[in-house]
Amino acid sequence: MKMSRKINVNLDPENDFLYHLGFDTNSQNLEEMFGDVRVVCMGGSAHRMEGFAHYMLDILGYNLPIGTKLDDMTINAHRYSFFKIGPVISVSHGMGMPSMSILLHEMIKLVTYAKCKDPIFIRLGTSGGVGVDPGTVVITDKAYNELLHNVHEFCILGKRVPREAVFDEETIKQLIACKSEEDSFDIVNGGTMGTNDFYEAQGRIDGAVCDYTQEDKLEFLYKVQAKGIKNIEMEAPMFAALTRHCGIRAADVCVTIINRLNGDQVSLSPELKHEFEMRPQIVVGRFIKELLSRE
Amino acid sequence: MKMSRKINVNLDPENDFLYHLGFDTNSQNLEEMFGDVRVVCMGGSAHRMEGFAHYMLDILGYNLPIGTKLDDMTINAHRYSFFKIGPVISVSHGMGMPSMSILLHEMIKLVTYAKCKDPIFIRLGTSGGVGVDPGTVVITDKAYNELLHNVHEFCILGKRVPREAVFDEETIKQLIACKSEEDSFDIVNGGTMGTNDFYEAQGRIDGAVCDYTQEDKLEFLYKVQAKGIKNIEMEAPMFAALTRHCGIRAADVCVTIINRLNGDQVSLSPELKHEFEMRPQIVVGRFIKELLSRE
Repeated sequence: MKMSRKINVNLDPENDFLYHLGFDTNSQNLEEMFGDVRVVCMGGSAHRMEGFAHYMLDILGYNLPIGTKLDDMTINAHRYSFFKIGPVISVSHGMGMPSMSILLHEMIKLVTYAKCKDPIFIRLGTSGGVGVDPGTVVITDKAYNELLHNVHEFCILGKRVPREAVFDEETIKQLIACKSEEDSFDIVNGGTMGTNDFYEAQGRIDGAVCDYTQEDKLEFLYKVQAKGIKNIEMEAPMFAALTRHCGIRAADVCVTIINRLNGDQVSLSPELKHEFEMRPQIVVGRFIKELLSRE
Repeated sequence: MKMSRKINVNLDPENDFLYHLGFDTNSQNLEEMFGDVRVVCMGGSAHRMEGFAHYMLDILGYNLPIGTKLDDMTINAHRYSFFKIGPVISVSHGMGMPSMSILLHEMIKLVTYAKCKDPIFIRLGTSGGVGVDPGTVVITDKAYNELLHNVHEFCILGKRVPREAVFDEETIKQLIACKSEEDSFDIVNGGTMGTNDFYEAQGRIDGAVCDYTQEDKLEFLYKVQAKGIKNIEMEAPMFAALTRHCGIRAADVCVTIINRLNGDQVSLSPELKHEFEMRPQIVVGRFIKELLSRE
């Protein structure tokens, strides 16, 4: 599938301040700083994305000059954490579609101003599984909203707008091909539901309030499963929709840390949680090595 | 107005893990740790809420024991930053209603398990003004969603649910009474629109994409203004709705950092931005001092 960029014609490349990142086109040469970027990796927590940055250093075999360390390039904007490892960016997006949306708008402007060539955006996340074993890596094909529609529904100027929420087929195939026989975990692809809340919207019965029963919850989760949805997180539809709208190849790679058909509380040991969180990093790490070796 | 708590009957006070905070009722005595809490202050960035924690230490005249410092109590959960200053909690909520929602569910469970007496939840934020001068402090009475309805509309088990989104009248009055004649800024009350996106939903023309004109945008913003809405941010409806549903007094105190009728780009100097960000802290600081002096 070929996609064409559909970027905002109002943008002024000479005079734009990416407020939540703290970069600007006025005093900084974004092309010089980021023109070599091929892959933008995103994940919820700053801690995890700093870890991924170090993991990338490792597997790409980069040595930083003695006396230097990776620097959070957006620390003064106080919103996200942002690391550059050669052609790879590792940046946190916080939790939920609004936080993801702010990051994505500004990252898409950044790669546009920097004239990056066909950059690929990948989210590495955690999620609740629906009928799959905890520890499974799910690569999303279609993203569903809370109403179980395969769109991102949001508002523009006070009106509801649906935007197509599917990920790039070719990138999905390439990611699935990164499976190794030695892996102790499964990689599957399927639908992902992205919600605006962790408790009520996902049918958990352990939130501060709960106006439904355990039976209502299970009925809903089986309906979710029947749609081909393999996992639930809080970013997929927005992420799929905006990247596709802008003609940017994107993928969502999440490990499941619970099977929601069996419960609500996440209670992994810190060791197992870390092992699970590494799995999307392992898969995406292989994808990036392969991509760079082809170029 | 008298409110009664309407907390989830499924909760097991002996066995609950507040996943995104990292507290649990099993190995920790939350009543001993947090039973004295009177006010929970929340704001977007970890940096700002750490600053507010130090500001509270200062204005409450607390001295930490020599050799100690404030500790981010939720650092190992890697999601929010959380500080306790005697009866005050200062915690970051990230950006947007989903991130706010996760925090609120877990904070409401926390104050319930800790048996806090009538705790008050206050958000201190930044916002875009609608027809008010930058630097004005807006105290929200009614919260509006992106469709300009005075509700928080969200999904429970795949169905749209509207929840009433008004803040506590008495708390608003008390906050407005904190105005001092020496203040160099205005404090007003009025409506606040909370959106799920900073760019398209707020009618900015400087996002990565923009499928409308400057004229469409202004038409929308004047419609917003005609509703009595004084500022736009990304948390108010969800925050108002869940706290009210649970019978918790709450208030939203935001400074405006731009007048959206005049533009989209936020371009304050770091000094002025800091001065503006201090204004909600000054107002809420006075409110807390007054509250504690009455008890």
